[in-house]
Amino acid sequence: MKHLLNAKDLTHDEAVAFLDTAEAMAATQRHAVKKLPTLRGKTVVNLFFEDSTRTRLSFEAAAKRLSADVINFSAKGSSVSKGESLKDTAQTIMAMGADAVVMRHSACGAAHLLAHAGWIDVPVLNAGDGTHQHPTQALLDAMTLRRWYAPEGAADGSPSPQGRDLSGAKVIIVGDILHSRVARSNVDLLHTLGAQVTLVAPPTLLPVGMEDWPCEVSYDLDASIEAIGPDAVMMLRVQRERMSAAGGGFFPSPAEYAQAYGLNLARREAMPDNAIVMHPGPMNRGLEITAEAADDPRSRIIEQVGNGVSVRMAALYLLLADEGNQL
Amino acid sequence: MKHLLNAKDLTHDEAVAFLDTAEAMAATQRHAVKKLPTLRGKTVVNLFFEDSTRTRLSFEAAAKRLSADVINFSAKGSSVSKGESLKDTAQTIMAMGADAVVMRHSACGAAHLLAHAGWIDVPVLNAGDGTHQHPTQALLDAMTLRRWYAPEGAADGSPSPQGRDLSGAKVIIVGDILHSRVARSNVDLLHTLGAQVTLVAPPTLLPVGMEDWPCEVSYDLDASIEAIGPDAVMMLRVQRERMSAAGGGFFPSPAEYAQAYGLNLARREAMPDNAIVMHPGPMNRGLEITAEAADDPRSRIIEQVGNGVSVRMAALYLLLADEGNQL
Amino acid sequence: MKHLLNAKDLTHDEAVAFLDTAEAMAATQRHAVKKLPTLRGKTVVNLFFEDSTRTRLSFEAAAKRLSADVINFSAKGSSVSKGESLKDTAQTIMAMGADAVVMRHSACGAAHLLAHAGWIDVPVLNAGDGTHQHPTQALLDAMTLRRWYAPEGAADGSPSPQGRDLSGAKVIIVGDILHSRVARSNVDLLHTLGAQVTLVAPPTLLPVGMEDWPCEVSYDLDASIEAIGPDAVMMLRVQRERMSAAGGGFFPSPAEYAQAYGLNLARREAMPDNAIVMHPGPMNRGLEITAEAADDPRSRIIEQVGNGVSVRMAALYLLLADEGNQL
Repeated sequence: MKHLLNAKDLTHDEAVAFLDTAEAMAATQRHAVKKLPTLRGKTVVNLFFEDSTRTRLSFEAAAKRLSADVINFSAKGSSVSKGESLKDTAQTIMAMGADAVVMRHSACGAAHLLAHAGWIDVPVLNAGDGTHQHPTQALLDAMTLRRWYAPEGAADGSPSPQGRDLSGAKVIIVGDILHSRVARSNVDLLHTLGAQVTLVAPPTLLPVGMEDWPCEVSYDLDASIEAIGPDAVMMLRVQRERMSAAGGGFFPSPAEYAQAYGLNLARREAMPDNAIVMHPGPMNRGLEITAEAADDPRSRIIEQVGNGVSVRMAALYLLLADEGNQL
Repeated sequence: MKHLLNAKDLTHDEAVAFLDTAEAMAATQRHAVKKLPTLRGKTVVNLFFEDSTRTRLSFEAAAKRLSADVINFSAKGSSVSKGESLKDTAQTIMAMGADAVVMRHSACGAAHLLAHAGWIDVPVLNAGDGTHQHPTQALLDAMTLRRWYAPEGAADGSPSPQGRDLSGAKVIIVGDILHSRVARSNVDLLHTLGAQVTLVAPPTLLPVGMEDWPCEVSYDLDASIEAIGPDAVMMLRVQRERMSAAGGGFFPSPAEYAQAYGLNLARREAMPDNAIVMHPGPMNRGLEITAEAADDPRSRIIEQVGNGVSVRMAALYLLLADEGNQL
Repeated sequence: MKHLLNAKDLTHDEAVAFLDTAEAMAATQRHAVKKLPTLRGKTVVNLFFEDSTRTRLSFEAAAKRLSADVINFSAKGSSVSKGESLKDTAQTIMAMGADAVVMRHSACGAAHLLAHAGWIDVPVLNAGDGTHQHPTQALLDAMTLRRWYAPEGAADGSPSPQGRDLSGAKVIIVGDILHSRVARSNVDLLHTLGAQVTLVAPPTLLPVGMEDWPCEVSYDLDASIEAIGPDAVMMLRVQRERMSAAGGGFFPSPAEYAQAYGLNLARREAMPDNAIVMHPGPMNRGLEITAEAADDPRSRIIEQVGNGVSVRMAALYLLLADEGNQL
C-alpha cells in the first residue's frame, strides 16, 4: 500500500490487517510512556485546505506518538490564498522534505490527484476530500465496531479482536447521506468486512444513483430499527444550514429532523440491548442525537476518538515505517 | 495536588514548596542544554477558548523544556465555534490521549467545571478563567517578589530563596481590580504567603463585596505609596476600551487615569529604593506605566516573564511527573 | 557572525563558507534519518509580523531537523495587535528562553533594530524586512546557481561545488525591483560572489537612486537575453494589485506585463541551453512565468525550495551551534 486514499481500495485481508495494526498501536497507548521511536527523523505535513481541528489534531497526535516531526500547513493566509496551484503547493512541501502528506480538501478527488499526478513521491493520506471519502474515519469506525460486535456469542468489548472481520454485523447509518464522506467511506469498508449496512435518511438527503452502493436504503428509522435489530447505529452530523428554517418544505426543519431521524432514548431502547451508538463528532446534541442517547452506557462516541489516533498511527506506520510493504 | 485551578487552594506550605520547585526549574534553564527528559511521552494540550499568545507560548515553552509533546487546540475555527459543548470538547481531547489540559476560558469557573464534572481524569491547569483566577500568574509574581524582597536585611536578588515565604512584605496592586483575575489571584496567594496587600483603584474599577478580601483598599495611589512604603508595586494592564473617551464621567479618560493611577518616575522615586516594579504584561506604555518606570533598574517585568516559564514547568512537573504526590 | 541580517554583510569568503555549510546540510538530508542532534535543547522562535507560510515552514523544518524546539509567535491576535511595542515583544520572547529569533516584519530595518537595540542578546535571523532584505533567500538562490553554473566547462548540477564562487556567472533578474527585497538581497550577494547581475523591469517598477547598485539595469528583456546570454534568469513574483486594471497608464496591465516581461517558451529558447530558470515562489503562472517555462527541464524552482531548508539549517548551525565562531 503506497497511499491511503479511499476506503474502497482496501481488500478484505488488508482491512483486517489494518485493524489488527491499529489494535497493536492502541495497546502501546496504555503504557506509561506512549511514545514510539518508529518515525524518528520523518516529517509529516498536515496540508489542510479546510479547517478541521479535530482531524488535524488526531493526525498530529498520531505522528508525534511515533516520534515524527509534524508541520502544519494551513491554506488560510498562505500562498494558496494568493492563488498558488495545488501542484506548486505540493511540490513546495515535498521539496521541504515531507515524508508523508496528510491532506484535507474541499474538492472530491483532490487526494487522488495529489497522489497520482506525478508531482510528489511520498505517501498521501486522505483526511477528507469533499463529499467523497474519509478513509481513516471508516477505519476507526470499523475498529470500534469490531471491538463491540460479538459474533456467535463471543464476549463483546474485546481489547484484542485480532483477525476477526465484521461478518454478520448489522449497521444502520442515519442522516445526511447526500453530503457525507463518512457514510460513503463506511459503506465501502463495512461491506468489504462483511457487515450489512442500511442507510436511513429523508429522500432529500440521499444522493441519486445509489443503485450501485452495496447497502440497503430506508426513509423510516423506527421501522428500520425494528426490522433489522442492528448491532450498531451510527448517527451523522447534520449541518444546520442545510435545514429549512420554516420546515415543511423540501428540507426538514431541525425539529422535524430530530423527531423523524434523531436518536433519542425511545429509539435507543428499541435497539437490541448490546447494540452500540456511534457518531463521528462533533455532535449537535438535541438535533441528530439527544444528550441521553449520546451519554448512554452503550455509546462508543468517545472511544471512537481514541481509536482515531490508533488508526492514524497504524496508517502512518504502514505507509512510512516499512516503506508500505506491510499490506 | 491533582489540579491547579485557584491560587486560594494552595496552603502556605504547598505554596512555598511550589516556589522552591520553580526555582529548581529556573536553575536548569541556566545550563547549555535546557531540556529535561521528565515528561517524555506525555502530551500536554493547550485548550484556549480565548486568544492569549503570551500565556500559551509560556506553557508551550515549559512543556517542551520538559520534553512533553504539545498540542495546541484553539477554539477558533474548531468544532467549538460550531456549537460543540465544553463536555464534548473535553472528552474528545482526553480520548486523543492528553495527559494534562491547560485551559484558558472567558467564563469564571470553567477550569473548575472541567476538572470536577467527571468528564476527564487528568490534571487541569487553569490559564485564566474570566475575571476569576489565573493561578500561575500569581505564582510567578510571588516567585519574582520572593527573589527580591529581603526580610531582615538579607540580600535581595537571591537566586535561591528556598524555604522562605513573604511574611512582612508590603505589596500595592494598582488598576482595574474589577475585571482582573491577576489581582484576585495575587491577593489570595500573597495573603497565604504572609504578605500585606493593598489594592488601589478608582471606585468604578473596584468590585462590590470586597469585605471578605484579605487586603486593604484605597482610591489614592500617592497616599498609599507614602503611607505603606511598599516592597513592590504591581501595575495592572488597563483595557483602553473601558476608559471614557471624554473623561469626567463614570470612568476616567486615559489621561485622567494615567495622572491619578499611572506609575511614573515621580511615584517610582516616592517608593523605597529597593522596592520593585511589576506588571503582568503586555504593557500600555504611557497609560498605566510610563516608559521610564517600565525601564527602571528596579523593574522586574522581564524577569516575571522568565519566571512564568519556570512556574509552569514546576506546575507540569508537580501535577504530572510524580502523579501529583509532591504536594 | 552574530546575526544574519543583510546579504551585504557577508564577505566573499564568508559567503562561500556559508554555501559550503549549506551543501553539507543538504547531504545529511539524503539519509534515511534526517534529524541531526546539533541543536537539541535550543529554542528557535519564529516571530512573524507578516504572514509568510512558506518562509516560516522552511525555517521550522530547518530547526526541527537540527532537533531544536520551535515556537511560532504570530503577531496576529497577539499582544502586538493590542499595541505592544517591538521592544516589549522582543524582551518577552527572550525571557521565555529563546536561543535565536527568526523575524519577518513589514518595516525596513526591523531585524537590524531587533539585533542592535540592546534588547536581546541572541542571534537574529532576518526572514524579510519590508522591501529591504531577505538574506536567506539570496543564499538559497546562490546555492542553487552555484550547483548549476559550470565555469570553464566543468559539469553542472554538481552536488558538491565546495569552495567555488560564482565568478563569471551572468544573471538576469526580472520584475518588480521596486518592491523586492529578493532582488536587493540577490544583487548584493551575487556581486560579492563575483557574478554579473542585470535587472530588467519597466521603469515604473524600478527604484530611484540605483546608481550605487553593483549591477546593470535594462527595460528590455528580449534585448538583455540576447546581449547577455545569461547563465540564469530569475523571475520575481508580481503583485497583481500593483498592476493597472485598464493598462496603458503608469503601471502595465497583467497582459502587457506578461507580454513584455513574462518568461515564456520563446524567451526560454532564446537563453543558452544550459541556463537555468529560477523563481522565489509562489508563482503566478500565466503572469510573470508561463506554465511551460515553470515546468521546463532547466527550471530549478522546486530545487530552490529544498535549498532553502539547507541554507536555513546552515544559518541556525553557524549562528547557534558554535556560538557564531565558524564564520
